[in-house]
Amino acid sequence: MAIIAVDMDEVIADALGKIVNTYNLKFGEELSRHDLVGKLLQRVLPQEHFDAIHQFLNAEEFFADLEVMPGAQEVLERLSREHSLFIATAAMEVPSSFTAKYEWLREHFPFISPMNVVFCGDKSILNADYLIDDNAKHFGRFRGQGVLFDAPHNAMIQGYPRVHNWAEVQDYFAREAVCTK
Amino acid sequence: MAIIAVDMDEVIADALGKIVNTYNLKFGEELSRHDLVGKLLQRVLPQEHFDAIHQFLNAEEFFADLEVMPGAQEVLERLSREHSLFIATAAMEVPSSFTAKYEWLREHFPFISPMNVVFCGDKSILNADYLIDDNAKHFGRFRGQGVLFDAPHNAMIQGYPRVHNWAEVQDYFAREAVCTK
Repeated sequence: MAIIAVDMDEVIADALGKIVNTYNLKFGEELSRHDLVGKLLQRVLPQEHFDAIHQFLNAEEFFADLEVMPGAQEVLERLSREHSLFIATAAMEVPSSFTAKYEWLREHFPFISPMNVVFCGDKSILNADYLIDDNAKHFGRFRGQGVLFDAPHNAMIQGYPRVHNWAEVQDYFAREAVCTK
Repeated sequence: MAIIAVDMDEVIADALGKIVNTYNLKFGEELSRHDLVGKLLQRVLPQEHFDAIHQFLNAEEFFADLEVMPGAQEVLERLSREHSLFIATAAMEVPSSFTAKYEWLREHFPFISPMNVVFCGDKSILNADYLIDDNAKHFGRFRGQGVLFDAPHNAMIQGYPRVHNWAEVQDYFAREAVCTK
């Protein structure tokens, strides 16, 4: 049994999908995830557009209706039978999002105990064996193995096992189980 | 340099003080901390009184104006110069308290970075060397050393170093520094 910590935005919750959709609706653009490969949003959008989107991101309601990343529920439910799962999300950057994020988790991941939800900023505080995250900055001082969940903004990052979707997460832990036997 | 995680209620925030004061005001009683030594609140109060207080505890506003435990600011500020400090609080039992707790910390402990605030339920997820907590249930699977912060409800608990106030926390880490040199 391993302790697996799982990030929220861009890993189990499709925040970028909502940002792109909202941006296109608001500004009549046709931005796609592909346009963002290897780039940060603030480098791609005109400053005034980015400011508007950033404000929207900071609204408490933003988190309430995010789509679940495909396969996340099924794979995490399966992993939870053999491993100890924690959701670890960096809500500190948008403190008003605590309650909305918590309620979203209760709705979409009811099999994960509220006791296993962690809101934190610096993820080096996690005592876990694995951390599945789209942001490699958290892996530097993390005591376990970082697993990079593919997202446009991290396309150029190397040095960590990369998973592109939840089917690959399942395969990754199936392989780990064989190798650590 | 050690990583020190510090609980919030009854350790840096005087939640029990407010509960006792509010109870006495509301019901015209003269309950004191002393009446609670070795006992849980729900065993001491009549059920209907406990229900009323419990409802009050779950209100978001409860956390907004808690007193700081004497000496907590000074000692933590001093410890933060040599150690890595995290505040680790189990807000999951009262999810509506996230934002109020976060703002209370920003106001009273501005020298602790928001990145070092952790809201969690099961504290075994903390990768810290020490955990200062009034609730010994968190020490069982914690990877580091539990340090029990004295509170009426934990009077009977044995098996962990006990500190009665923040001056004793300071002494404890001064001794640890000598012993680990």
